[in-house]
Amino acid sequence: MDYYSNQIRKLIDELSRLPGIGTKSAARLAFHLIHMPVPDVKRLAGTMVEARENVRYCKECCTLTDQDLCPICANADRDHKTIMVVENTRDLAAYEKTGKYEGVYHVLHGAISPMLGIGPGDIKLKELIARLEKEVDEVIVATNSSLEGETTAMYISKLIKPTGIKVSRIASGVPVGGDLEYIDEVTLLRALDGRTEL
Amino acid sequence: MDYYSNQIRKLIDELSRLPGIGTKSAARLAFHLIHMPVPDVKRLAGTMVEARENVRYCKECCTLTDQDLCPICANADRDHKTIMVVENTRDLAAYEKTGKYEGVYHVLHGAISPMLGIGPGDIKLKELIARLEKEVDEVIVATNSSLEGETTAMYISKLIKPTGIKVSRIASGVPVGGDLEYIDEVTLLRALDGRTEL
Repeated sequence: MDYYSNQIRKLIDELSRLPGIGTKSAARLAFHLIHMPVPDVKRLAGTMVEARENVRYCKECCTLTDQDLCPICANADRDHKTIMVVENTRDLAAYEKTGKYEGVYHVLHGAISPMLGIGPGDIKLKELIARLEKEVDEVIVATNSSLEGETTAMYISKLIKPTGIKVSRIASGVPVGGDLEYIDEVTLLRALDGRTEL
Repeated sequence: MDYYSNQIRKLIDELSRLPGIGTKSAARLAFHLIHMPVPDVKRLAGTMVEARENVRYCKECCTLTDQDLCPICANADRDHKTIMVVENTRDLAAYEKTGKYEGVYHVLHGAISPMLGIGPGDIKLKELIARLEKEVDEVIVATNSSLEGETTAMYISKLIKPTGIKVSRIASGVPVGGDLEYIDEVTLLRALDGRTEL
């Protein structure tokens, strides 16, 4: 890449290390940045460093936030007795976008994966168990419908059941608008098993 | 987006303004950045600002570079009497990657586009004409094979021909490995017009 001068090459190298950004996208981004007004580039760079330095885990639900307590945990109007367990902050955002869930969350930051060497101690399970000391009515396990997500759900269910707290799992089945023809067999069988009376 | 705390939302907003990055990719990038080691984020941010502040136009060929003269113009081994005109620095890089072109370049930073209101005065044409004062054997026009690229090529050719300097245009035709069946008609006719004797 000696056709690009040193600092351009360095910038492309740095950008291409980000996930989902190949060399071509990195070059496109780099030239876009070089053409942006200086204050805009500085603001973007500053926001990155600031977010990295200030964002931490919410001391209640472990989501990523820039305060001690995230906006959801700090909201007295939410139902703090219902905890939805999700794998990461983006999954939390997905449920928040529905605007219908009134409870609070617990973010695990991962899922149990023997394949990747991620055990129960590597995700925020201790913190979940600690929260059950307070009054909790129900724990809704909303980990992904993948092998790792299901393993984690089973593990959590076994862990919580002895305490007498209700543990539920979000339904797995045919997505709304989905055409049965194109749905995989495992999902079809799940949908059949999870059928509800009309 | 009040399910994300302030600084995370700000970071996602900033990132989603970059070209080719939608809200979902921006969220993915933001969380990646938040999980990166602090020194790495600082290095990336620093590289961005540094490149933006130091990169300028090469005073000879107008490519983007962090020195007064770009590595190609500074290289005495290149043929400075042959100038290839390209639309941007990435196009220059594309020809440099072939490793076969020995001449120098001229980067226009755009193409004439009446549709977008970009006239001859908005691209680096004055700088090209100024270079012709020195001894130049040939100007190879390698603007894109688009409407804007072709318009620009015609304009340059009309501008330079009176000076007696040779002006050529890179060939337009079927790409190597291309299947005629899938090539558009305009390209097929171009390839026919540009046929060479075997």
